[in-house]
Amino acid sequence: MALRARALYDFNSENVGEISVKENEIVTLYSEQDIEGWLEGVNGKGERGLFPASYVEILRNDVPTPPHSNNTSGDGYQGQGTRYSNIPTGGFDGSYKIQTQVDNFTKTPASNFSTFNAPVQQQHNYEISQGSDDDWDDDWDDSSTVADEPGVVGGSLRDYDGNEPSTYRLSTTSMSRGGNAQQAKSSATVSRNLNRFSTFVKSGGEAFVLGEASGFVKDGDKICVVMGQYGPEWQENPYPFSCTIDDPTKQTKFKGMKSYISYKLTPTHTQNQVNRRYKHFDWLYSRLVEKFPVISVPHIPEKQAAGRFEEDFISKRRKGLIWWMNHMTSHPVLARCDVFQHFLTCTDEKAWKQGKRKSEKDEMVGANFFLTISTPAAPLDLQEVESKIDGFKVFTKKMDDSVLQVNATINEFARKQITGFKKEYQKVGQSFKALGQAFELDQQSYSIGLNQAIAYTAEAYDAIGDYFAEQPRQDLDPVTDLLALYQGHLANYPDIIHVQKGALTKVKESQKHVEEGKMEGPQADGVNERCNIISFATLAEIQHFHHTRVRDFKAQMQHYLQEQIGFFRKITGKLEEALQKYDSA
Amino acid sequence: MALRARALYDFNSENVGEISVKENEIVTLYSEQDIEGWLEGVNGKGERGLFPASYVEILRNDVPTPPHSNNTSGDGYQGQGTRYSNIPTGGFDGSYKIQTQVDNFTKTPASNFSTFNAPVQQQHNYEISQGSDDDWDDDWDDSSTVADEPGVVGGSLRDYDGNEPSTYRLSTTSMSRGGNAQQAKSSATVSRNLNRFSTFVKSGGEAFVLGEASGFVKDGDKICVVMGQYGPEWQENPYPFSCTIDDPTKQTKFKGMKSYISYKLTPTHTQNQVNRRYKHFDWLYSRLVEKFPVISVPHIPEKQAAGRFEEDFISKRRKGLIWWMNHMTSHPVLARCDVFQHFLTCTDEKAWKQGKRKSEKDEMVGANFFLTISTPAAPLDLQEVESKIDGFKVFTKKMDDSVLQVNATINEFARKQITGFKKEYQKVGQSFKALGQAFELDQQSYSIGLNQAIAYTAEAYDAIGDYFAEQPRQDLDPVTDLLALYQGHLANYPDIIHVQKGALTKVKESQKHVEEGKMEGPQADGVNERCNIISFATLAEIQHFHHTRVRDFKAQMQHYLQEQIGFFRKITGKLEEALQKYDSA
Repeated sequence: MALRARALYDFNSENVGEISVKENEIVTLYSEQDIEGWLEGVNGKGERGLFPASYVEILRNDVPTPPHSNNTSGDGYQGQGTRYSNIPTGGFDGSYKIQTQVDNFTKTPASNFSTFNAPVQQQHNYEISQGSDDDWDDDWDDSSTVADEPGVVGGSLRDYDGNEPSTYRLSTTSMSRGGNAQQAKSSATVSRNLNRFSTFVKSGGEAFVLGEASGFVKDGDKICVVMGQYGPEWQENPYPFSCTIDDPTKQTKFKGMKSYISYKLTPTHTQNQVNRRYKHFDWLYSRLVEKFPVISVPHIPEKQAAGRFEEDFISKRRKGLIWWMNHMTSHPVLARCDVFQHFLTCTDEKAWKQGKRKSEKDEMVGANFFLTISTPAAPLDLQEVESKIDGFKVFTKKMDDSVLQVNATINEFARKQITGFKKEYQKVGQSFKALGQAFELDQQSYSIGLNQAIAYTAEAYDAIGDYFAEQPRQDLDPVTDLLALYQGHLANYPDIIHVQKGALTKVKESQKHVEEGKMEGPQADGVNERCNIISFATLAEIQHFHHTRVRDFKAQMQHYLQEQIGFFRKITGKLEEALQKYDSA
Repeated sequence: MALRARALYDFNSENVGEISVKENEIVTLYSEQDIEGWLEGVNGKGERGLFPASYVEILRNDVPTPPHSNNTSGDGYQGQGTRYSNIPTGGFDGSYKIQTQVDNFTKTPASNFSTFNAPVQQQHNYEISQGSDDDWDDDWDDSSTVADEPGVVGGSLRDYDGNEPSTYRLSTTSMSRGGNAQQAKSSATVSRNLNRFSTFVKSGGEAFVLGEASGFVKDGDKICVVMGQYGPEWQENPYPFSCTIDDPTKQTKFKGMKSYISYKLTPTHTQNQVNRRYKHFDWLYSRLVEKFPVISVPHIPEKQAAGRFEEDFISKRRKGLIWWMNHMTSHPVLARCDVFQHFLTCTDEKAWKQGKRKSEKDEMVGANFFLTISTPAAPLDLQEVESKIDGFKVFTKKMDDSVLQVNATINEFARKQITGFKKEYQKVGQSFKALGQAFELDQQSYSIGLNQAIAYTAEAYDAIGDYFAEQPRQDLDPVTDLLALYQGHLANYPDIIHVQKGALTKVKESQKHVEEGKMEGPQADGVNERCNIISFATLAEIQHFHHTRVRDFKAQMQHYLQEQIGFFRKITGKLEEALQKYDSA
């Protein structure tokens, strides 16, 4: 018998090939296998086409589950009604920003999903960030499994890729001197944040400070903070590399219904080219955000619904991805992490699947990430840390304001050059042209030279008008690209600072508890030490931020000025040509 | 007994030192000697100060003349009521344009005089153009005498500066073969224009063509038209010279009530500096316009009431006068004429008076000017002349339009650079400055270099904004000065063409009359020959116009482009300085 499904919500087709379905409408499916979150079938009206898999539930034995059943675990594979929980892209591309959904749960989801209740909403966000629009396979079971374990605190210990020898059990409790399981448990006497959605909690920072993190740390996972000239910094990457992003090419699939852009990535350390799509960057980004609580993961360029395949957009996105890549490869921690290396190097489809699952099941994320950090022996002075963090908070605020101002100014400046400046110079050209044409009515030999010279001058000013219109693409656009990247970083830091502040607060609390005899000294020491680790990591990240900031803005200002100099030289050259015409006049 | 006067019209004081008088109010005078058209006295209210002499009539024997008596001969010295007919300047300066009043009677006079009836009005205009605001003497009798003989047709034969040997009697009649006085008279059978205000009539063109001009022509007065490569041209000035205009300085007189600007003129052929005021240029201009019917006398810069002593205005007027002077000295006819030479060379006050009177009594003006022209033997082909003139008419029309367009465009362009362009570049500078200030919050040694470089870049863009604002004065203003001069020429040509056309019409008429037997052949030949003289003169003037046009516009375009090149080089240099700051950063 035909496979059927019932619509859970109204869907109005927006593109060719899509069909509309009404809530509770029964549709006949060609396959329960969705492609990129879309199912193909025939609706009540007999129209054949695509609709979002998440909008329907497949009827296995014609005993439909009522819409909005309390099946909100996010695991779409329990119960008789199969609810797809992945969100189709394409029709929805760009209707929301995945990264903001993921690194900040407080943001409102796009209206398309306002019908979902909160937990399911989060669930969906995870789904999007992980498995959506996957053109390798449709192993939703994997992603949804991971989705069942947000934050991955504790969780069953799995043994993957037989690394036992180099792995060892590490518990936060064992870190506090003479600590034991009891202490770890009793650390609950340090009060928890009431707001379970605070970044400090979500990031796993709290769990770690309270000594609840535990997991295996492979040697390869160890992340070292060292004392540098300017304070704590990430240990440099002993094998530095970079990665080029070239030839964005349009690919189509599913009878040409779905198109996407593929980028050629070539890392210097392998010299092997890999092809990646925006959604792969997107997926990788989400993994990194989930894994590294106090590292500012550069934002990937935003999605865009309309004109996704237009020249300008593609080249602009590529530039954005190149900036993103530079920041990834130049970050000692991000550059070396497994999931990024997998992304950069994997060429085999099967290996990709495995690596994808593995990273989605990675234990050493959030709270456990802090387990992987090794710091210098000498602990930091809390006062000093606090003042440094406060200073940086002021810095980011002021930089954010000025970046906003520069952005607005140069956007307006670009607009003026493309419109007003161009117009003014070309109007001058036109008036010279008119004058030359009037003069041409006098064809006496001694006037012809002047007439030609004036005609050339008119053309010169017309050309200069075009120079002005073309210039912003050369010098101002790259600046805006850089500013966009740093606006992303500046948006990350409040959360990072929040985590560090949260840890500091816990330290003060525990000290207070000790004075009040509510807590034993060693336990407080544990809190103190774990906070110390977070402080080291945070300061190392801040130091890295300043270094790359100085590097990037120096390079960009130089580039801008070089372009401007070239621009004004070009104008001068054109005018000199025009002037020469008068010598013979 | 006290000298008294009655006000003919209301006068409302506008400046310090002036007093208001009501119509019929009796004022007590300190002297009947007016200064620059102003009398000093005490009004009914007992206020002491200045009022326009032309607004009162002096009461000689307390038998007042009723206001608006029919005493409108323009000779202010008849009858018991002395009406000053010169118009005071200062309070009126710039309320009208003398030159347009003089070279075009159809223009409406400034409202100040709308109470006067037409003939008096003209009279006044003459007065203004000749004697107004004279700081040498107040010999109004002279000027008014001249004013009694507008056009100076015929008039009693005077023998001045004993030049008899080199002077000889020349009558237009003697020019037509076998001509005699009778023919000259009967030439009245060629109909006169009904419009006695047509330029053809006013210029004396008609009188000349009709053979009514007669006067002595000194050798020195002879003006030769020769055949050049491009047709008729003025014989070159064998003693070319130029003249500089420097150091406009403010002078005051009459207890500082009256101020004026004096310019130092130094002609290259005498190397003697003379001091001249605007009103002297003004007076000279009127003489020239009156004297030369088919020569385009360059307009002097316009008068201006407000801000006459402001730096900008003075330097702008000086530039205008320099342009004017260049055109005067480079014109073969104007450069050599007596009144101009007198203006350029006379340093002695007494000699100036004499020369002034002499030129104001010059007979060889208007119709008689044509007597001084000697042409090549071979007459011009009328058809050819007509088509050349028509072609030039089209040329001037089109040039006038394009000059208007260029003027409007570059004025707007200048405004944009002074406001918009400056603002845009300085806003960029400000945003860079803000960014630099944010960065300065990070005082780690490796960021200081960048901070300083960005600060310098900010200053550079602020400076570039100023460059844009200052530039138009360097390159666009001179262009507008040139355009203004040529707009003056283009305004002259319709009248010049009108005179030539009028002559052509007379030729056709006379030919028709001959066919109809109304006129004798020789007489028609006379008309023909005299028309031929006007045609030679007109074409020579047109040729001169084209030559100077090409010369001036070539020079000005070169200057403009050189300035622009220097401007963009300056910007480039500034940016290069900024770029270098990053090397050490």
